[in-house]
Amino acid sequence: MSLRPTLDFLLYDWLDAEKLNQSERFADHSRETFDAVLDTCERIAREKYAPFNRTVDTQEPHFDGEKVILPQATHDAHKAFVESGMMSAAQDYEIGGMQLPYTVQAAANSFFAMASVSIGSNMLTSGNANLLMVHGTEMQKEVFAKNEFSGRWAGTMCLSEPQAGSSLSDVSTRAVPDGADFQDDPLGPRYRLTGNKMWISSGDHELTENIVHIVLAKIPDENGKLVPGTRGISLFIVPKRMVDTQGQLTGERNDVALAGLNHKLGWRGTTNTLLNFGEGKYPVGGKAGAVGYLVGAPGKGLHCMFHMMNEARIGVGTAATMLGMAGYYASLDYAKSRPQGRLVKKPEAAGAAVVKDSAAPQVRIIEHADVRRMLLAQKAYCEGALALELYCARLVDTQKTGNAEQADDARLLLEVLTPIAKSWPSEWCLEANSLAIQVHGGYGYTRDFPVEQYWRDNRLNMIHEGTHGIQAADLLGRKVLMEKGRGLQLLAGRVTDTIGRAAKVPALAPHAKALGAALQRIGSATEAAWSTGDPADALANAVPYMQAFGHTVLAWLWLDVAVRALEIDAQKARAVTAGKIGATDYFFHYELPKIGAWLQVVETRDPTCTALPEDAF
Amino acid sequence: MSLRPTLDFLLYDWLDAEKLNQSERFADHSRETFDAVLDTCERIAREKYAPFNRTVDTQEPHFDGEKVILPQATHDAHKAFVESGMMSAAQDYEIGGMQLPYTVQAAANSFFAMASVSIGSNMLTSGNANLLMVHGTEMQKEVFAKNEFSGRWAGTMCLSEPQAGSSLSDVSTRAVPDGADFQDDPLGPRYRLTGNKMWISSGDHELTENIVHIVLAKIPDENGKLVPGTRGISLFIVPKRMVDTQGQLTGERNDVALAGLNHKLGWRGTTNTLLNFGEGKYPVGGKAGAVGYLVGAPGKGLHCMFHMMNEARIGVGTAATMLGMAGYYASLDYAKSRPQGRLVKKPEAAGAAVVKDSAAPQVRIIEHADVRRMLLAQKAYCEGALALELYCARLVDTQKTGNAEQADDARLLLEVLTPIAKSWPSEWCLEANSLAIQVHGGYGYTRDFPVEQYWRDNRLNMIHEGTHGIQAADLLGRKVLMEKGRGLQLLAGRVTDTIGRAAKVPALAPHAKALGAALQRIGSATEAAWSTGDPADALANAVPYMQAFGHTVLAWLWLDVAVRALEIDAQKARAVTAGKIGATDYFFHYELPKIGAWLQVVETRDPTCTALPEDAF
Repeated sequence: MSLRPTLDFLLYDWLDAEKLNQSERFADHSRETFDAVLDTCERIAREKYAPFNRTVDTQEPHFDGEKVILPQATHDAHKAFVESGMMSAAQDYEIGGMQLPYTVQAAANSFFAMASVSIGSNMLTSGNANLLMVHGTEMQKEVFAKNEFSGRWAGTMCLSEPQAGSSLSDVSTRAVPDGADFQDDPLGPRYRLTGNKMWISSGDHELTENIVHIVLAKIPDENGKLVPGTRGISLFIVPKRMVDTQGQLTGERNDVALAGLNHKLGWRGTTNTLLNFGEGKYPVGGKAGAVGYLVGAPGKGLHCMFHMMNEARIGVGTAATMLGMAGYYASLDYAKSRPQGRLVKKPEAAGAAVVKDSAAPQVRIIEHADVRRMLLAQKAYCEGALALELYCARLVDTQKTGNAEQADDARLLLEVLTPIAKSWPSEWCLEANSLAIQVHGGYGYTRDFPVEQYWRDNRLNMIHEGTHGIQAADLLGRKVLMEKGRGLQLLAGRVTDTIGRAAKVPALAPHAKALGAALQRIGSATEAAWSTGDPADALANAVPYMQAFGHTVLAWLWLDVAVRALEIDAQKARAVTAGKIGATDYFFHYELPKIGAWLQVVETRDPTCTALPEDAF
Repeated sequence: MSLRPTLDFLLYDWLDAEKLNQSERFADHSRETFDAVLDTCERIAREKYAPFNRTVDTQEPHFDGEKVILPQATHDAHKAFVESGMMSAAQDYEIGGMQLPYTVQAAANSFFAMASVSIGSNMLTSGNANLLMVHGTEMQKEVFAKNEFSGRWAGTMCLSEPQAGSSLSDVSTRAVPDGADFQDDPLGPRYRLTGNKMWISSGDHELTENIVHIVLAKIPDENGKLVPGTRGISLFIVPKRMVDTQGQLTGERNDVALAGLNHKLGWRGTTNTLLNFGEGKYPVGGKAGAVGYLVGAPGKGLHCMFHMMNEARIGVGTAATMLGMAGYYASLDYAKSRPQGRLVKKPEAAGAAVVKDSAAPQVRIIEHADVRRMLLAQKAYCEGALALELYCARLVDTQKTGNAEQADDARLLLEVLTPIAKSWPSEWCLEANSLAIQVHGGYGYTRDFPVEQYWRDNRLNMIHEGTHGIQAADLLGRKVLMEKGRGLQLLAGRVTDTIGRAAKVPALAPHAKALGAALQRIGSATEAAWSTGDPADALANAVPYMQAFGHTVLAWLWLDVAVRALEIDAQKARAVTAGKIGATDYFFHYELPKIGAWLQVVETRDPTCTALPEDAF
């Protein structure tokens, strides 16, 4: 199975990616340059990522007391990725980028996520550098961001702490000015940081000569106290090794120490660390405290961070999607080749028992109805999720290059869709991986087949970069309310547009009607949830709300894809068209009806869970 | 958290287990003897199983070229289990058993499954010996079954082959008479077997001095051909080491060779093997071919095997249930102690943003609505599943000790409920384990906490002992049809009885109504599925049918439990009563409404999956 036809359809036939070059920024690009990028990434993923996906699972990172050891394959994959130029693909020509649309970059990166999701952690590095390009000083861009884009250094995001995972307002890492002249450091106002950071991906390794940590910390007030809440959070660059203004290592370690590696269920190719900042293990200039350079204004750390949240969440959603896709392809291949059992036949006499002709040869399992159901569910989940991620990526491009109104609409739509782009694939492409195991039967439960690893790897995605619960609270507690509900209205407008087009196609008209009803019900459930004005009532069932919202969004995207597929191929002459229509039918018959159960508790602000006394659990 | 109060409620308050001693077989028993058994098993599980659950996960069985090596803890756990007498607990006094009701045995075994599901595989040994007690000769019982019950030997079930997993009719292991006097062996008609058996749990180890394989094989006809289908299957005892009529090892190996160990996603405490029978590695009497002794009549192998299927499937369901319960308790403990975040408060002015008081201390996560939802879902899934398994176990006892009508009804009800007892916990207690991970956040994804292992271990249960798809085909293709639907009618009668009792309780009356509607819809969906008389139409959506059927059964059991809880404690003075009512409310509000989506495709015999051309996937 090749991902390419699916990507090509979504990019070119559905999202009109070729027209991206109508904006000035992408004027030099064309389908040829986009295809060349896809070709390169597909090849690197095939050669340097896929063959080593099991290697990085079994050869987990370990610390030898001095260094974190990773398999050679991880070094090779990193080198190949850097050499491809993908790390800075979206950046300006003048700093060595390709000015590639994010849509195409996201599509290209999907090859890597499918081949080995954890062997690379380049998204963190480019996300880190992107943030510096927006909020950093010229010197910070020059010294830190550029060396990350070139692949010479790597980057991290240090947000969580052992006592503050999802609750960033409780960050307690302290940053105090480093000397009287702390404002005068050419790399930025210089602080000393002390604190512990947990769950830091790629927090230590030898893939690059240096690591640029971006760290959330609080600057104490005049009484030495940390400001409660997120308002007090500032953002700092904390390099693992000290550097000068030329971007050369000074030879001195910064006071950042690896306190431990987390041993995970999956996603083992990427180190995940507990880092101690400023414990005095590596004093700088004879003094304990990790040296950090302030980025942006004090107290605006989360604001700077949010700038990159959307892309990071689309990245997580894409990773979840591609793990699902990898499992789908593996189980489809298996189902096409594995003989097992026979089909049931209609008995000749009424009331006779079900018969099978046991002398006939066994059939391949793709001929069994239930195996087909499991395969089509995977296709509907994973190709639908990919459509969602690419749609969101396209909005990122519009936000950057559209006219004022288009850009603003894209921004607001992205606000509403991002929790879905993060949560929906994390939940349903994980389910797809479980179905991929099931299609394999006992073999799927062994480590001789890849599907069990996909399932383990994918389980992370509902947790990191904002848990499912956090995404749901963000969606129902913030996103659908912001700007007086204009984001939800924008989305409803686009859904209604698709409904209008689908209603004219006889094969799709029943789906159009079902989607209209679902959209209405989402609207009324949103109102009912907030009808008491008490967030405790509204958010009591935020996750079921998000599940229903996500299924409605996916139904919309599938319907939109189906309309487009039939526009291109009204005769359904191509197998790919039959596949899109089949997946759309599946989604509308088997999936969309699930929203009733989810919305019922939202609409009634069901208090069953919140009201139960603690000792009754 | 202790399982005991939950077990006590279900056994004594709900299932009236104390009254089991009204039957002659259990006349010597009382609540005291039952409690003593539960106490012993709880203690052994706590001391010899639970502390080593991670050990058996990390020290996977390996083959040193001669022997399969297991951790010492596995040997110790085996010894403690054998010494408890639980292996033969249900057997007659005269062969050293306790004549314990199966209901109590199943309850007692749940402690082991919760503490370490894979460290023991005693269910296989006792299942094997039980089968011989029913179908074996006196000599076979004496030599093989008794030595299994005593724990001196272990047992296996060798059904699957590499080319025949779910499809037993394709078994190709051959059994040919061993010499002219093959009928005269005191251990049973002697055959020589050749073939390969796959997925054999506990197929090789050194826990016991011998292993008694029960093997499905086919006896060729006069032309040397194997009869197609399941009719040709016979059943053989094939010991790993040859024995005499006194049950002593003769010193000779039988021709059964370990061809490989399967390396699994979980359930790693139990070896899982590929065994070669009769390849000539260990010739017996100078001749290749594994020596096997026929059990029962030739060609009746599957018939003999089915005798133990119900109990094996209840065993798998119980294992899935208890893995779910272990995760529930772990995540409940965690949620009660982990501080993180703050509760949302109602804003003072209408339209103001959601506020939290970030200066206040963090709350424990059990105070968050979504964590409570995830905990209550786990409770509803796992305690509900336990009720289901114990209910089925109680039917096994009634089948054995009730009057003719009771016994026959119990038999038929068990036929209908067994696919649910196997499939429902496999699916929903796995989901419970995923929620347990989610409650733990990032910590749940690490191997420092037990929940990721429960999730991995539990993934096996939808696969072994008949996959989900096989259970669904059995339910809709056989069980609800057999005896002209009398099994389904029996079940409907019991459900209707509960509805009648619940309708009189104001707090439960809405649930009674909802359950009545669900029952009706199951009935009409069953008819609609079969309305064309073509099994291909009916079974196209057998799994969604089973999911809806299972949810309806669980709703019924929860309602029945709730009625009983309120009978005992009408004032809801006890926390346990509030817990049962809360879980029942949860199930009826959040879960039962899901059946609509599942049944819709059943009722329409939806052909989306079966009709899609293969090249469109």
